[in-house]
Amino acid sequence: MKKLILIISMWLCITSVTQAQSISSPNGEFSLNFSLLSDGTPTYQLSYKKQDVVKQSKLGLELKNDQQSLLDNFKITKTATSTFNETWKPVWGETSEIKNHYNELEVTLTQNLSNRIVVIRFRLFNDGLGFRYEFPKQKNLTYFTLKEERTEFAMTGDHTAFWIPGDYDTQEYDYTTSKLSEIRSLFDKAYTANTSQTAFSKTGVQTSLMMKSDKGLYINLHEAALINYACMHLNLDDKNMVFQSWLTPGANGDKGYLQAPCNTPWRTIIASDDARDILASNITLNLNEPCKIEDTSWIKPVKYIGVWWEMITGKSSWSYTNDVPSVQLGKTDYSKVKPNGTHAANTPHVKKYIDYAAKHGFDAVLVEGWNEGWEDWFGNSKDYVFDFVTPYPDFDVQEIHKYAKSKGVEMIMHHETSGSTRNYERHMDKAYQFMKDNGYNAVKSGYVGNILPRGDYHYSQWTVNHYQYALEKAADYKIMINAHEAVRPTGICRTYPNLIGNESARGTEYQSFGGNNANHVTILPFTRLIGGPMDYTPGIFEMNIANLNPNNNSHVNATIANQLALYVTMYSPLQMAADLPENYDRFLDAFQFIKEVPVDWSTSKYLEAEPGSYVTIARKDKNSNNWFVGNVNGMEKRTSKIKLDFLDKEKKYIATIYADGKDAHYNTNSQSYKITQKTVNYKSSLKLTSAVGGGYAISIIEKK
Amino acid sequence: MKKLILIISMWLCITSVTQAQSISSPNGEFSLNFSLLSDGTPTYQLSYKKQDVVKQSKLGLELKNDQQSLLDNFKITKTATSTFNETWKPVWGETSEIKNHYNELEVTLTQNLSNRIVVIRFRLFNDGLGFRYEFPKQKNLTYFTLKEERTEFAMTGDHTAFWIPGDYDTQEYDYTTSKLSEIRSLFDKAYTANTSQTAFSKTGVQTSLMMKSDKGLYINLHEAALINYACMHLNLDDKNMVFQSWLTPGANGDKGYLQAPCNTPWRTIIASDDARDILASNITLNLNEPCKIEDTSWIKPVKYIGVWWEMITGKSSWSYTNDVPSVQLGKTDYSKVKPNGTHAANTPHVKKYIDYAAKHGFDAVLVEGWNEGWEDWFGNSKDYVFDFVTPYPDFDVQEIHKYAKSKGVEMIMHHETSGSTRNYERHMDKAYQFMKDNGYNAVKSGYVGNILPRGDYHYSQWTVNHYQYALEKAADYKIMINAHEAVRPTGICRTYPNLIGNESARGTEYQSFGGNNANHVTILPFTRLIGGPMDYTPGIFEMNIANLNPNNNSHVNATIANQLALYVTMYSPLQMAADLPENYDRFLDAFQFIKEVPVDWSTSKYLEAEPGSYVTIARKDKNSNNWFVGNVNGMEKRTSKIKLDFLDKEKKYIATIYADGKDAHYNTNSQSYKITQKTVNYKSSLKLTSAVGGGYAISIIEKK
Repeated sequence: MKKLILIISMWLCITSVTQAQSISSPNGEFSLNFSLLSDGTPTYQLSYKKQDVVKQSKLGLELKNDQQSLLDNFKITKTATSTFNETWKPVWGETSEIKNHYNELEVTLTQNLSNRIVVIRFRLFNDGLGFRYEFPKQKNLTYFTLKEERTEFAMTGDHTAFWIPGDYDTQEYDYTTSKLSEIRSLFDKAYTANTSQTAFSKTGVQTSLMMKSDKGLYINLHEAALINYACMHLNLDDKNMVFQSWLTPGANGDKGYLQAPCNTPWRTIIASDDARDILASNITLNLNEPCKIEDTSWIKPVKYIGVWWEMITGKSSWSYTNDVPSVQLGKTDYSKVKPNGTHAANTPHVKKYIDYAAKHGFDAVLVEGWNEGWEDWFGNSKDYVFDFVTPYPDFDVQEIHKYAKSKGVEMIMHHETSGSTRNYERHMDKAYQFMKDNGYNAVKSGYVGNILPRGDYHYSQWTVNHYQYALEKAADYKIMINAHEAVRPTGICRTYPNLIGNESARGTEYQSFGGNNANHVTILPFTRLIGGPMDYTPGIFEMNIANLNPNNNSHVNATIANQLALYVTMYSPLQMAADLPENYDRFLDAFQFIKEVPVDWSTSKYLEAEPGSYVTIARKDKNSNNWFVGNVNGMEKRTSKIKLDFLDKEKKYIATIYADGKDAHYNTNSQSYKITQKTVNYKSSLKLTSAVGGGYAISIIEKK
Repeated sequence: MKKLILIISMWLCITSVTQAQSISSPNGEFSLNFSLLSDGTPTYQLSYKKQDVVKQSKLGLELKNDQQSLLDNFKITKTATSTFNETWKPVWGETSEIKNHYNELEVTLTQNLSNRIVVIRFRLFNDGLGFRYEFPKQKNLTYFTLKEERTEFAMTGDHTAFWIPGDYDTQEYDYTTSKLSEIRSLFDKAYTANTSQTAFSKTGVQTSLMMKSDKGLYINLHEAALINYACMHLNLDDKNMVFQSWLTPGANGDKGYLQAPCNTPWRTIIASDDARDILASNITLNLNEPCKIEDTSWIKPVKYIGVWWEMITGKSSWSYTNDVPSVQLGKTDYSKVKPNGTHAANTPHVKKYIDYAAKHGFDAVLVEGWNEGWEDWFGNSKDYVFDFVTPYPDFDVQEIHKYAKSKGVEMIMHHETSGSTRNYERHMDKAYQFMKDNGYNAVKSGYVGNILPRGDYHYSQWTVNHYQYALEKAADYKIMINAHEAVRPTGICRTYPNLIGNESARGTEYQSFGGNNANHVTILPFTRLIGGPMDYTPGIFEMNIANLNPNNNSHVNATIANQLALYVTMYSPLQMAADLPENYDRFLDAFQFIKEVPVDWSTSKYLEAEPGSYVTIARKDKNSNNWFVGNVNGMEKRTSKIKLDFLDKEKKYIATIYADGKDAHYNTNSQSYKITQKTVNYKSSLKLTSAVGGGYAISIIEKK
């Protein structure tokens, strides 16, 4: 009898360890189930309010030169659950405090035959799931090469998706809104030209991917903590509506080189029946490691203007001369060439920007085109393209340093790398030291054009490692980074808050390259911004680019009110007033909002949100009791009704409302706006109409 | 009439400019002819003593994405001839003075339609030809990508060749001696295993390629001044006996990225009916730029011993522990692991080597395996594999520095990169500074294993650029470089004499990996050494490796006398006595030659030479009146008769002759040698018999 009981108990233990493992989110609304298929393939499934968000989906990794791979034939050797609940303070952010509360399931799998161990860790929050693969230190697995990651996200139906083409090199696409089943037929149209682009599949898309089901469930797929791994895209099996992870390869086609002990990034699924919860989610930040920088006093949000838009529009040039078709740094003698007369980054012109910044309370001035090499920087796959320390003859580094300092204005450095990453690394210490020696504490870096070493991609493991190297070295030098054309962020700014911005999406410059979709900014917060802030460089007041450069017929597809709202809706600790001073001078009353809007917040309220249609956010200044509201609107004229019940009950405020004019329209009447003022309190509500491609911005200033 | 004369003159000018262009060498023995084919393809042809060395051969370059390429449709728009004659002094060398005397033909070609300009420059010396392509600064050609260089070397017959397989990653092959027509059938056998190797063609071979025609003409093909270009291999069209240049591609298959104004390296053809002229040739050095280092006082030839051979033989280990299968630098705590007890690079052991060096007059001690990371350095495609500054717990950098200094001995640093070039560059400044701070003025660098970034090759333009970067930065730090597994040299040591050595061929270590062909060292001077000195690391006295490590049955295929001769026949400013002190102690009389032989010379006389069979060289010490003679012998026992008529007529000398014993043989009786002494003068001659795989070494010391 004893023996029988023993046998039965053992059998129960064994079978229980193969049973599905489940956890719920702290509030019980999400449910995560893990189980093995009969062949030992690990799977997971996610429900929200008892409905599938992700159907049972496979997990695993395909290895190169490995018969077994890490796909199947696993058994569960251990499980553990735990809870974590803390509140932490970011150095800068949408809120001054962030709650990190999740239930965790850790599943240890051992593979039969190979005896290799893989841990899959699931963290279930009240707004979604994060999970990753971990490879503990172990005898049977040390170095391994990835052929592909085989994580699936099985969708429950033919959702509406807001997507851009999967691409190893760029994110600078307008979003396409379509059913998943339509991606294939719409791909070629979506795949507009770019200086560096590499598609891989007609149903490949990038993350974060925003979706909405027929039942009104909002689903977002992304990754967090992309460090020393290749960037993940999603490839849709559009027969079964299953997304498969698709990593960016390196030059030789391999997708990753791993050495245990190590982890993959977190794969994240944020979901809610309320779109505002997607915007409010802190899953991405919460899954990243806490801040690694001890003294963060030198990290400061910044509002800036710059010598930039005039070059983007073609009014001026980055280059100094038109006489040199081919530059060899150190051999080309710029003191002997004929200046082209259109080089904007010259000392007197920069001083005017410094004066303007000082006059209007901007923290800093960015200057592009200050350094030797711009005559042939682009499209030549040039190795030694810039040295990052040698100015053109008409840019006096020391004089500008002195002048800016005397006006209390910072200078922002510019390091265009032209994708030549080895060259940038060779010069990096000198370049960063040059910055410190000359009063630059922040740098905008760029990776325009194909990556060198040639054959590699912007989002491969090798290049992702480079961006991280640049970021960590910058922290050693107490330098802040705003990296353009780099991989889209994944919350690493929690760990390295000197990463104050990325572009890594289609930004305002494309308004000058043909225009963006008018509803582009109603999608970006749901897609690009899930991973971190974007240096969107808003604040354009002159929408007809021909008025800057007669040879450029592009049109900025937004109203002025929409441009103002972006300072609230496109969260970033780094905000540019991108237009030319003379254009702001024409609309000084509207400019006032940009001058007043802060760049660091204690609280954020997501008032209204529908991807592709509208976003309305209210934020409280970190350094005062003032609030700011922004609304950006899509393709249909719309009336917002918002309650100001977030205001302090004891206070009165003056609300200044910058709204679209009655007949404003992003295309035909973009500069029509009206400004009104009223006293408000927490009981107030506002009803405001936004034009097509329009919006509104409100400053709510405490009445003392 | 005037008009007719004018027209005829013009026609003469025009046609004369399409006629063949010719120059002779200064002594008239060589003749170079340049001409265009009817389709405008440039060609050249080389004769020696009125016989073809190279039949008419095409020139040109195939461009990527370019319909015309730079192959044909050229016309000659200018030619110029000149003469150059100077004598210059190398910082170190086989001779203290080098004569650089050539006749030059500069041909300017303009391509029809494209109007692109290519200059081909020919320099004809008394021992051969160098030529290169130049792309002047011009409007119609700035950036271009090479698909392939299309330089041909049309051989006059089925020559005997001494070749190794064409390979993008290694030169570590035994030489195969065969007819050109046999290369294809012998290729697979020649292609022995290596940790990093990439063949491209069954008739591909590397340079420098040594050949001998049926008529006894010796021909050598190589390149000079390989800077910012891909290394050239030769692919044989074995129907027509024409060699075609075959460049090493990068990861994406492209063969070179050029920006005019620029030049290709020089392609060299050395020829003579006397094999000794090949060894004596200074064409490679003469085609390189003069020395770019102003103060060269810190560059010093060096004779050294080292903690190395015991690891190569497997007697000891580079690694410190056997407990760590996978190292993560900075995370792996070596103070807590169990030492394996076989780690040779420990302070007491190194001090013994310092003592031995001091006792026997060696300049320096090399130590490998001193730094963290050796447990998994190899075969893992590891990125962050070494940091070049963190020693193992049992290697006391400061103590060893102090001790070596007190004994008047230098320490030689070791930087194994494991092919991880980006990692090396990231650490390079700190690594070089660490050297200066701790008394290291020279470094042996290594590139074992596949190159990172993955997909690239050891000999691509990208990686060649890396070696040059490391060399030039070392010069800034006053550091000398001995680069192993790097691209084979091409005379750059004239421009950067801190490049005191490379391996880049199959060296002595392979004697411990299975053995080298016994006549290997009778070929290397004709092949590998044409481009620069080799750190061959000779001086092995214990030929049965099992006596060092019972698990290693390899045999050093040489006699002791042969090993001594190498210090003369394998010219290098950097010479190692590679064996263990205990093995030298067993043969101290033979060791005496190694102790006495200098490493820098004022004169060199090539007494006898036949590739694959024997090399006999006499050299005069730069710093005294002493002479040293070395003979290495191949597969047939042979008697040399040499005259000592190079000695000073007024002087008497004591010659100490280290010769093979009567029945010596590299395999069966390798340690048999006899030492005799005699007084000699310039009228003396010697008759000496060398064993199979044997040789002799003679010190001829001035009798004062």
